[in-house]
Amino acid sequence: MFLSAARARPQLRTPLRMLTSHAVIFSTHGEPKDVLKTHSYEIDENSIGPGEIVLKTLGAPINPSDINQVQGVYPSQPEKNTALGTSEPLAVGGNEGLFEIIKVGSSVKDFQVGDWAIPTSVNFGTWRSYAACDAEKMMKVPNPEQSKAAGKKQGLSLNQGATLSVNPLTAYLMLTHYVKLTPGKDWFIQNGGNSAVGKFASQIAKLLGFNSISVVRDRPEIEELRKELTEVCGATHVITEEQNNSKEFGPQVKLWLKESGGEIKLALNCVGGKSSAGVARKLAPNGLMLTYGGMSYQPVTLPTSLHIFKNVTSAGFWVTELLKSDPNLKRETVDRIVEWYTSGELLDAPLKENEVGDQEVAQVVIDAIAASKSGKQLVKF
Amino acid sequence: MFLSAARARPQLRTPLRMLTSHAVIFSTHGEPKDVLKTHSYEIDENSIGPGEIVLKTLGAPINPSDINQVQGVYPSQPEKNTALGTSEPLAVGGNEGLFEIIKVGSSVKDFQVGDWAIPTSVNFGTWRSYAACDAEKMMKVPNPEQSKAAGKKQGLSLNQGATLSVNPLTAYLMLTHYVKLTPGKDWFIQNGGNSAVGKFASQIAKLLGFNSISVVRDRPEIEELRKELTEVCGATHVITEEQNNSKEFGPQVKLWLKESGGEIKLALNCVGGKSSAGVARKLAPNGLMLTYGGMSYQPVTLPTSLHIFKNVTSAGFWVTELLKSDPNLKRETVDRIVEWYTSGELLDAPLKENEVGDQEVAQVVIDAIAASKSGKQLVKF
Repeated sequence: MFLSAARARPQLRTPLRMLTSHAVIFSTHGEPKDVLKTHSYEIDENSIGPGEIVLKTLGAPINPSDINQVQGVYPSQPEKNTALGTSEPLAVGGNEGLFEIIKVGSSVKDFQVGDWAIPTSVNFGTWRSYAACDAEKMMKVPNPEQSKAAGKKQGLSLNQGATLSVNPLTAYLMLTHYVKLTPGKDWFIQNGGNSAVGKFASQIAKLLGFNSISVVRDRPEIEELRKELTEVCGATHVITEEQNNSKEFGPQVKLWLKESGGEIKLALNCVGGKSSAGVARKLAPNGLMLTYGGMSYQPVTLPTSLHIFKNVTSAGFWVTELLKSDPNLKRETVDRIVEWYTSGELLDAPLKENEVGDQEVAQVVIDAIAASKSGKQLVKF
Repeated sequence: MFLSAARARPQLRTPLRMLTSHAVIFSTHGEPKDVLKTHSYEIDENSIGPGEIVLKTLGAPINPSDINQVQGVYPSQPEKNTALGTSEPLAVGGNEGLFEIIKVGSSVKDFQVGDWAIPTSVNFGTWRSYAACDAEKMMKVPNPEQSKAAGKKQGLSLNQGATLSVNPLTAYLMLTHYVKLTPGKDWFIQNGGNSAVGKFASQIAKLLGFNSISVVRDRPEIEELRKELTEVCGATHVITEEQNNSKEFGPQVKLWLKESGGEIKLALNCVGGKSSAGVARKLAPNGLMLTYGGMSYQPVTLPTSLHIFKNVTSAGFWVTELLKSDPNLKRETVDRIVEWYTSGELLDAPLKENEVGDQEVAQVVIDAIAASKSGKQLVKF
């Protein structure tokens, strides 16, 4: 009845409002410079479904996993399809990004025009200038005006918003989701203390009251690095791989533990090989080592006696898989990180910005991927 | 009042009934031949406390961990004390053994003369001909007459009773206490498939309906070994390390899994190094590898991607520590193993028997330790 009535009513034709989205896509896997192409397609803002939203991309980073995805060597992959009007199935690259809502469908409750958002899960395809999608594919984060109105010290920066989902969430969840560390007493130890996740882990541990030992490779400027990691990032102690592996240094670590009255209950490993054995050896009985990377390309190595006689467990951490099965956990964790960013308590990692401007978008991403060896890159659309 | 009355009553003097116990003791750590000595001491059967029992040792095995304990390189150690009437603190060696109760104190409810028992926990000091102890230090197991009266097919043999606590319990608990394997479908894989624990694991898995892949080193008589491990021990499949590490063999394993409709959810590792990586690689996502030995003296090695992308966890298993915190679990598990032995469904590992007879007991144990390189030894007191 209602349906017939509606049909009978004269339709109000709304005018076309077309946006052109330039997307960085791949239809086959290979080296990014060979397989990434630009695909441009039209979005009619006025023909979106009632539950859909239209997004303008503010920025999207280049993560190592994005590159591996294009190469075809990453186990999580976007579905390739013809939804963007192509004859060949393709996928849009990129997994993290910050978006501004520029249009909302008639039944959308959670977003208003001007809101900021990040993808609810991975494989969204963030390397494109505009996108239209179901509202549930996006998770709101406060834009600077909203943070100001809520009395926060500052708003999220574009960099902070565009890189919320991977590194800070990885650091926070590894520190809180598995082992209960007692604030003011307990410790974690990590190798790769100078990595992006490592720096977030030191900062977040300090905010949570946990003590930390960051292990780094020795280098000529070790004192500057130690100063940065302790004074800026809040690591309790910074030691070299050589110190961590030397018997002579053991009593020093024991002394630190004694002074705190706590134990090293957690080790974070992003290196592997001898370095993973080194941090695992510092664990208290029943301790846990979480592996989230393998920078040395060596397998995780653990002395047998640590497993049998100290009941040390070695497990993996992959933020993608953990959050896939628990969207509420992502919401809570994002809120926590945003709170620290907007209160000015957490520092983001510096990024090199690449403005797309009038350039061909695939080439900008290809150049940014090439440049990412010397530091993390952000593409501004 | 009661106390005074008792004191006033004339004491009934019971005659001394002295037993001489010959114990193999150590007061310092070192090579067994250098530090193991015989200490003989008297037990007055008529002066035991109301909660005590007197035991005659039927047999005690030589386990590798017993030797390591004497050497001082094992983390679980008996307390050295002067309880046996020595001026110097000492400990009696041995952790497993089978005992016959020959006298019970007035308030002992759980034992009668003639019962068989095994130590409730480790560090009892089983290498001695007689012992007196609190009844709670011992756990009853049926003697052959009791098994016969209960309608069982057969009684426990001395070998079976004396070696109940370590190898069969290790195999059973690793298969049942951590991962739920579905009978008739799921699989475990193990290296060291020809070890004592490995053979128990194959047998017990068959009794529980689990499929198994036992990995063994290649050898000239591989076909005989395969025949023994499948036909006698009940392993579903026996493969060599080379096969397990070859890409060409992978599809064969996949076919076995497909036919069963199950997954390899558990890996047991007693080797380490490359072999541990090999069995871990066969695990399904979210699988667990339990390490209970390190025969290769190489650390446990696990490809980083298995941790991160397949969520494989690597943990240790130590029967001593697990049962220390859960005595009921030991009781249940012992009952289960005894049931299988007395129903004739489980075969024990062959032992070489060493009769003490008139010999000096420390020398018998020292000789048995030397001989244990060529096979497991049992000392009959």
